[in-house]
Amino acid sequence: MHAPIELADNAADVLARIRERAPRVHCITNSVAQQYTANMLLAAGAVPSMTIAAEEIGAFVAGADALLVNLGTFDRERKSAVELAVKTATAKKLPWLLDPVFVDRSPPRGQFGRALLAARPAVVRLNHAEFTALSGNKAEADAAARFAQANATIVALTGGVDIVSDGRRRIAIANGDPLMSAITAMGCAGAAFVCAALAVETDPWLATLAALAAFGVAGEVAAPAASGPGSFAVAMIDALHRLDRVTLRARVKAS
Amino acid sequence: MHAPIELADNAADVLARIRERAPRVHCITNSVAQQYTANMLLAAGAVPSMTIAAEEIGAFVAGADALLVNLGTFDRERKSAVELAVKTATAKKLPWLLDPVFVDRSPPRGQFGRALLAARPAVVRLNHAEFTALSGNKAEADAAARFAQANATIVALTGGVDIVSDGRRRIAIANGDPLMSAITAMGCAGAAFVCAALAVETDPWLATLAALAAFGVAGEVAAPAASGPGSFAVAMIDALHRLDRVTLRARVKAS
Amino acid sequence: MHAPIELADNAADVLARIRERAPRVHCITNSVAQQYTANMLLAAGAVPSMTIAAEEIGAFVAGADALLVNLGTFDRERKSAVELAVKTATAKKLPWLLDPVFVDRSPPRGQFGRALLAARPAVVRLNHAEFTALSGNKAEADAAARFAQANATIVALTGGVDIVSDGRRRIAIANGDPLMSAITAMGCAGAAFVCAALAVETDPWLATLAALAAFGVAGEVAAPAASGPGSFAVAMIDALHRLDRVTLRARVKAS
Repeated sequence: MHAPIELADNAADVLARIRERAPRVHCITNSVAQQYTANMLLAAGAVPSMTIAAEEIGAFVAGADALLVNLGTFDRERKSAVELAVKTATAKKLPWLLDPVFVDRSPPRGQFGRALLAARPAVVRLNHAEFTALSGNKAEADAAARFAQANATIVALTGGVDIVSDGRRRIAIANGDPLMSAITAMGCAGAAFVCAALAVETDPWLATLAALAAFGVAGEVAAPAASGPGSFAVAMIDALHRLDRVTLRARVKAS
Repeated sequence: MHAPIELADNAADVLARIRERAPRVHCITNSVAQQYTANMLLAAGAVPSMTIAAEEIGAFVAGADALLVNLGTFDRERKSAVELAVKTATAKKLPWLLDPVFVDRSPPRGQFGRALLAARPAVVRLNHAEFTALSGNKAEADAAARFAQANATIVALTGGVDIVSDGRRRIAIANGDPLMSAITAMGCAGAAFVCAALAVETDPWLATLAALAAFGVAGEVAAPAASGPGSFAVAMIDALHRLDRVTLRARVKAS
Repeated sequence: MHAPIELADNAADVLARIRERAPRVHCITNSVAQQYTANMLLAAGAVPSMTIAAEEIGAFVAGADALLVNLGTFDRERKSAVELAVKTATAKKLPWLLDPVFVDRSPPRGQFGRALLAARPAVVRLNHAEFTALSGNKAEADAAARFAQANATIVALTGGVDIVSDGRRRIAIANGDPLMSAITAMGCAGAAFVCAALAVETDPWLATLAALAAFGVAGEVAAPAASGPGSFAVAMIDALHRLDRVTLRARVKAS
């Protein structure tokens, strides 16, 4: 069990290490999310790269500290890039996160998502519809725990409250703001931020909790300054860039 | 004929239905415009998707409520995606809009634009140069009406004043702000918003008028708050998100 | 030699011509940078296009006033687009700029960068790591001058201070703000802005100096208004859009 204060300090520590070490995160992500994801990583202190060319993705992943695999758009080249990237990450023991976006919308995507899950991502981040499509179960804490255990991974089931489980432990993080779901690529950028945390914290459980808590708190800080989703998207980047320990301690809500 | 007040109420009604029903709009759009288009649709209350993979575009379009086809960038995979998507939309009787961006700039694009026109989009949205390239005529109201009739579609000829015609009727909408042309993807995002309207209003004539009027009014509301095109692009998303009936009634200008 | 006041006036003149003539800049750039680059060009007064389809890139480049070649993402289609585009630019004597992004990260990209250099870009814009990867030398002014001379090009070596050399002359421009490196695509957008300058100023030396000085000053104007990198990215577009001679004269720092 973690008290919110421990979680807040863990988040502050992880954030400090990202800012200090500037880890490289290679992102295979959908074309809609690329710019916002890159800016979120830079705001956190990490260094993004995003190429998908078959002849160089191996070199990029080998030189990175973590890998993001997001299925949001799903063209041919991106698909073979994912396979090469995961192979390199596995060989180099690099942590990687699977974000199976829209896996509920088309059967080939569902199949690809399940194949990737079998390749052992450190973390799977997904929303309720995606969880149901991949697991065959209703999206709630028990099912998430069973799914995490069965796949030897950490499940980050995002929603109004984020549920995190590694099969054995489970935590609910209740930070964030409704405006976060009114912006494209917000979840994708949050998943990339988990990758930055995985790059500097060897315990993937602590890394995932830290990133989700910090991301949610950044959303809470950004929301009051915004006049709508457009200005919120901008304020969110500023908020993550300036997020500090005092704010995290005051705001992290977990149980 | 429509009085501005009727148009404003129609726009408010359509906007309310988008917010309530959250229609899915599948967008095949150029890579430059994807993020802004997705955020504009979300701001309006719709749910965007943007994949172009051949093996799943059929499933995405079949599960959508409207389809956007934008030619802004024109790589091979996107082109075959368009063909598959239009086939599915036609089979499912889904409304779709053609935005033949830059059709005036290269002959193969012109040819592809004409072939798509023959596949019967509900609406064609284009600027003056694109209209001239596709129709062979000067961009003015009479030519737009003839072009609409000849192609059994609704023409939305955008510019300082937007001219809309279905061949029989024609309306000029005089809303908007010059800053709207200083931002990339503004027209593309506006066309996507017309698709969201087509998804909730079965009369494509009313849907097109509603969306163009509301989009122009959002531009007028956003402009005074902006210090230039960067902040205008952000304010425009906020403005569409908050647009209400009172503002529409006060501002819609049509004849 | 140029006094800062001459450089400022040169920058103001070039900016005025971009606003007046609205030159077309065709950009082959990475998918992460496309939207921000397009908006920066529009803010400056230029007209961007970004298609990479083999069958039409020739027509787009032939109708453009300058060409940007950026290697940031490096998929197959983009690579053959670059080759066709450079061929057309050379045949039409169109100025083009090479931005060999991440050329230090993978061997095939390094090879492609060197091949492009041999095709004689008017300007090469690169950061320190990229310079070292391409030239084999430490990134400093003497090496930049030798590299420029050996490749018959202008080198714009960007960093805290930008060093520009055509082999014979060299200038250090000390404008800009640290926030400029906290945003993705800022350097890419700056390189595109150099292309807009090349389109309206036949002397590539003056065009490069003008664009780098103006871009750095825009960054300085934007920074105080920003609460972080998110709002800075927005303010930067506004600042370039409104940049004037008085501000340039007050701020250009060169030696």
